Amino acid sequence: MGRATTRGRILRIRNGSVDERADTLVVEEPLEIRVNGKPLTVTMRTPGHDFDLAAGFLLGEGVVRRAEDLRVIRYCAGATEDGSNTYNVLDVSLAEHVPPPDTSLERNFYTTSSCGLCGKASLDAVRTRAQWPVADDRVGIGPRILMELPDRLRGAQRIFDRTGGLHAAGLFSVEGETLAVCEDVGRHNAVDKVVGWALRQGRVPLRGSVLMVSGRASFELVQKAWMAGIPTLAAVSAPSSLAVGLAEEAGMTLVGFLRGASMNVYTGIDRVLLEEGSGHAEEVTT
Amino acid sequence: MGRATTRGRILRIRNGSVDERADTLVVEEPLEIRVNGKPLTVTMRTPGHDFDLAAGFLLGEGVVRRAEDLRVIRYCAGATEDGSNTYNVLDVSLAEHVPPPDTSLERNFYTTSSCGLCGKASLDAVRTRAQWPVADDRVGIGPRILMELPDRLRGAQRIFDRTGGLHAAGLFSVEGETLAVCEDVGRHNAVDKVVGWALRQGRVPLRGSVLMVSGRASFELVQKAWMAGIPTLAAVSAPSSLAVGLAEEAGMTLVGFLRGASMNVYTGIDRVLLEEGSGHAEEVTT
Repeated sequence: MGRATTRGRILRIRNGSVDERADTLVVEEPLEIRVNGKPLTVTMRTPGHDFDLAAGFLLGEGVVRRAEDLRVIRYCAGATEDGSNTYNVLDVSLAEHVPPPDTSLERNFYTTSSCGLCGKASLDAVRTRAQWPVADDRVGIGPRILMELPDRLRGAQRIFDRTGGLHAAGLFSVEGETLAVCEDVGRHNAVDKVVGWALRQGRVPLRGSVLMVSGRASFELVQKAWMAGIPTLAAVSAPSSLAVGLAEEAGMTLVGFLRGASMNVYTGIDRVLLEEGSGHAEEVTT
Repeated sequence: MGRATTRGRILRIRNGSVDERADTLVVEEPLEIRVNGKPLTVTMRTPGHDFDLAAGFLLGEGVVRRAEDLRVIRYCAGATEDGSNTYNVLDVSLAEHVPPPDTSLERNFYTTSSCGLCGKASLDAVRTRAQWPVADDRVGIGPRILMELPDRLRGAQRIFDRTGGLHAAGLFSVEGETLAVCEDVGRHNAVDKVVGWALRQGRVPLRGSVLMVSGRASFELVQKAWMAGIPTLAAVSAPSSLAVGLAEEAGMTLVGFLRGASMNVYTGIDRVLLEEGSGHAEEVTT
């Protein structure tokens, strides 16, 4: 965890008083991901779990789909002029049977589309690349278990405790067991890290799992969940219209505003098993 | 504002009771930005202020630096097969004196670097492209004015009121006057929108201004502020290590955890004019 935080001096103004004091900052550094030696992307991330981040990123992009698709991941030593290793450049060697990504397109897979680029086209693009069905994963999850997840996520955020500022993503079983929690300055990186961990552990597709994120649920996060075969995505804050649209398309359960004893279920309502006597549950779960 | 939000049905679970109800979602749709007819990038954004978003994005990338660098911005009609306009593809024609961006590099300007890719290299890359000095903008801003900004930003968030979930960026004068406030599902888009508005108004470089953001201060946001000549960046939440490093490099004032009567000043302390009798102000502002 050494490189995940750093110390500095700040001026603190509080209720009219001013003092200079030491402060802990979360580290943000660039990570270049190369595939078979060719640069693919650069992301600004918090150092730590870099191999998982790379694996999860490649899963989300549809380049790999299971652990056997990865041959080796290593930091590129000697990438600097003086031969030192910054641990900010890594190379992923793919297994022989895996076609390398078209680096000329990089992440902008939309730009070659000759359609008018709308939400519909975005959904179509993801549907084409989706690797694991989640609609047929019918394992339910109770509201009580869901309501415990924000505290469990928060409780595992060790860097947040010291810096007060970064995103978290957690993978849980539907029984509420914590599988992995990662933190990062980038919300998508935190998700890539836990999903990449699962991929490298041979746990993808992540059937019977829940992905919990500390912020909002965007289109991109639903896409990453789908690519990993995760049937339920829960967020502390709001989802966007396209996140809801994609979750619907995937047959995924999307939960938002998961706070205290309260939540909104946007899609895949029947996967949220309602306890008996909790109102007109039967009416709404059909 | 019609396309900025949409309506849907959700299942709400609250304190054991369950009901189905209508809900308002913030819209997320892709926007493709073309320059002189060539696709440059696609961003997922909330529709609205798209021309400002494109102008701000190009300013941040170092493609344009003032209003005269833009010739015309228009939506691409007929980009769909049926000839309809999705308002999700726009083309920016640059003035003749402006060299078009190298689209083969797209946004990954790091990837051509043969150095080891570290925080230092990122700072160097931005310094090379920075267009406006901010270190010599010595206009101060009082802590009392800064403390008012979060409420002013929040008060101007009309979409947030209805959806509870998106980012905001606001431009203010050092006297506390609101210049522009924009909301978006993407934090960087919200900044691009207010900065692009200012560019198109001929207000760049934004001397004597403050950029206030609703979330954290990342490297990318400091970079965008610097490219627009904004001397002070204030955030509700935490900055990252590289954000602080770049603000220091730029001579920018960076304020974080700006909440209630409290804030942390990370860099450019002397620009924050401390009131008399507020402790050992003289000691810390030298």
